[in-house]
Amino acid sequence: MSDFDYRILDDIIHSRVRLAIMSYLMTARSEDFTALKKQLNLTDGNLSTHLSKLEITGYVVLEKQFIGKKPQTTVKLSAEGEKAFGDYLHKLTAMIGNPS
Amino acid sequence: MSDFDYRILDDIIHSRVRLAIMSYLMTARSEDFTALKKQLNLTDGNLSTHLSKLEITGYVVLEKQFIGKKPQTTVKLSAEGEKAFGDYLHKLTAMIGNPS
Repeated sequence: MSDFDYRILDDIIHSRVRLAIMSYLMTARSEDFTALKKQLNLTDGNLSTHLSKLEITGYVVLEKQFIGKKPQTTVKLSAEGEKAFGDYLHKLTAMIGNPS
Repeated sequence: MSDFDYRILDDIIHSRVRLAIMSYLMTARSEDFTALKKQLNLTDGNLSTHLSKLEITGYVVLEKQFIGKKPQTTVKLSAEGEKAFGDYLHKLTAMIGNPS
């Protein structure tokens, strides 16, 4: 496929919200659901929808626990997610040229 | 808006097919419709749909003429499109970090 074939871009990562989530996790590695929601300026529903898509694909892992009586969800970038993001960046750069 | 707010990414450009079109035109500047379709591995319908969205937004200009009896459409990147793509790259890099 040529560099300009849109199919080379992983649509699971490329959607704007999921790209923001994955980009953030590439730096933070893991984050509490509520903090992630604030950082990315998302609603509960929006973040949950996109996280479940990333989780089904294996790119993130959601860990749920109780802190006292309060449920807490931590979102972690998986090794598979990290690799997929690296591949995605490589193909994106091949398409758009090196933006630096 | 923080670098990780997905709204900073211009959705007119970010969609995978339109990103491929705009990326190609940033190098080629202008291209014949049929050649563009081949380069990007698209169907007539798919390319037409996305080109009209880019045209309505002012990012590309479509020039139609007859070569002998045959109609020919040339797709040109507009100055506005070039500027929008530059802004888009800048914000994308802020989000995903510099991939080089």
